[in-house]
Amino acid sequence: MAIEVFWASGSPYAWRVLLALEYKRLPYTSHLLQLSKQEHKSPQMLALNPRGRVPVLKDGDYVCFESLAILYYLDLKYPQPGIFGRTPQEAGTIMRVICEYQEYTEPHLTTIVTAVFQGNADLAGDQLTAAMHAIASEARTIEGRLSKSDWIVGDSCSAVDMVIFPGIQLLKRALEKPLAAELSARFTPVEVQYPALGRWLARVAALPGYERTYPPHWRA
Amino acid sequence: MAIEVFWASGSPYAWRVLLALEYKRLPYTSHLLQLSKQEHKSPQMLALNPRGRVPVLKDGDYVCFESLAILYYLDLKYPQPGIFGRTPQEAGTIMRVICEYQEYTEPHLTTIVTAVFQGNADLAGDQLTAAMHAIASEARTIEGRLSKSDWIVGDSCSAVDMVIFPGIQLLKRALEKPLAAELSARFTPVEVQYPALGRWLARVAALPGYERTYPPHWRA
Repeated sequence: MAIEVFWASGSPYAWRVLLALEYKRLPYTSHLLQLSKQEHKSPQMLALNPRGRVPVLKDGDYVCFESLAILYYLDLKYPQPGIFGRTPQEAGTIMRVICEYQEYTEPHLTTIVTAVFQGNADLAGDQLTAAMHAIASEARTIEGRLSKSDWIVGDSCSAVDMVIFPGIQLLKRALEKPLAAELSARFTPVEVQYPALGRWLARVAALPGYERTYPPHWRA
Repeated sequence: MAIEVFWASGSPYAWRVLLALEYKRLPYTSHLLQLSKQEHKSPQMLALNPRGRVPVLKDGDYVCFESLAILYYLDLKYPQPGIFGRTPQEAGTIMRVICEYQEYTEPHLTTIVTAVFQGNADLAGDQLTAAMHAIASEARTIEGRLSKSDWIVGDSCSAVDMVIFPGIQLLKRALEKPLAAELSARFTPVEVQYPALGRWLARVAALPGYERTYPPHWRA
């Protein structure tokens, strides 16, 4: 039975799963849900994930949600190519950098993206400035890693690249809005301020199947 | 070379790692740091973890931090007994429930515990009441799982039990404070309001080596 994935355009969490499916060259049936129509809260979706969130993966009878758990499941079920490292040490470091991203970057990124897309008038306020400052600090650490290696941990693309990439893309998109001009001065153009990170973004975007993972409504 | 673990009494994150080490019956050298003396920010500790946080694990030349990453590393390096499931499906669900706890319970738990230990006067305020409500809702879900099985996922103790247990213990301890009496009415006595959860707490506390993981300053 084919893998089914339920996702939404622009969700960074869903994007991670599509990147993993394409990287592993797994065939899958794509169900693109319209959040504006509340399709993720339909009775059918709530039966799969009572929290009514995407992504959700269905593989035969097995249902999984929470993006990191889906990546982990996929890697155990379909191990080649591996995305959680080749040794216990590499695996531990991949998971560590994922945890660090989720703890020290993602909350700030969510704060900024939400404020921009909601048209928050106070984009130069203290809270958002502090959030941007924290992100810039974390980005410098990642920049340091990527200046020594093509991928964030180890010598091939891994789950940590898949976890972080969609978040950076979403942040870049938010910071392109005219009202975010002042806020964006610390981060963009990424290719200038963080050149290794910029090259890594292009490297991920050149992976086979990447175009199928790109948020459809971002092309409009 | 022996495993070394750097931890602090009462840190729920560090407690997870001690539970895993004891469960796997791994010999380790314990370094109990005094946070009040800023021992986690010493040059030696910052060289291991630049964020100056515990737990930190050192295994020979390899250093790992972030508690989930340490559990993951330990399970790959020392697989018996396994703590991340026996099948890809069980592993995916263990990781899913860990992610759900971190996303939907832990931030609320941190809010409450911090407020209580800081002696926040407004413990009946809207934010804390909402946090307690969210925790109670998540606890009912876990109660449902534990009413059907001895462990949160699968039929043996796993990483998800080790991740959640210290958080619940910390919450219980906070809610025992007299100033938290009103707030605690939704949760305690755990053994009465969530009987399966109460039995599970006792089950974890009966694991071999548990006494060595118990926060020393809680005995005082």
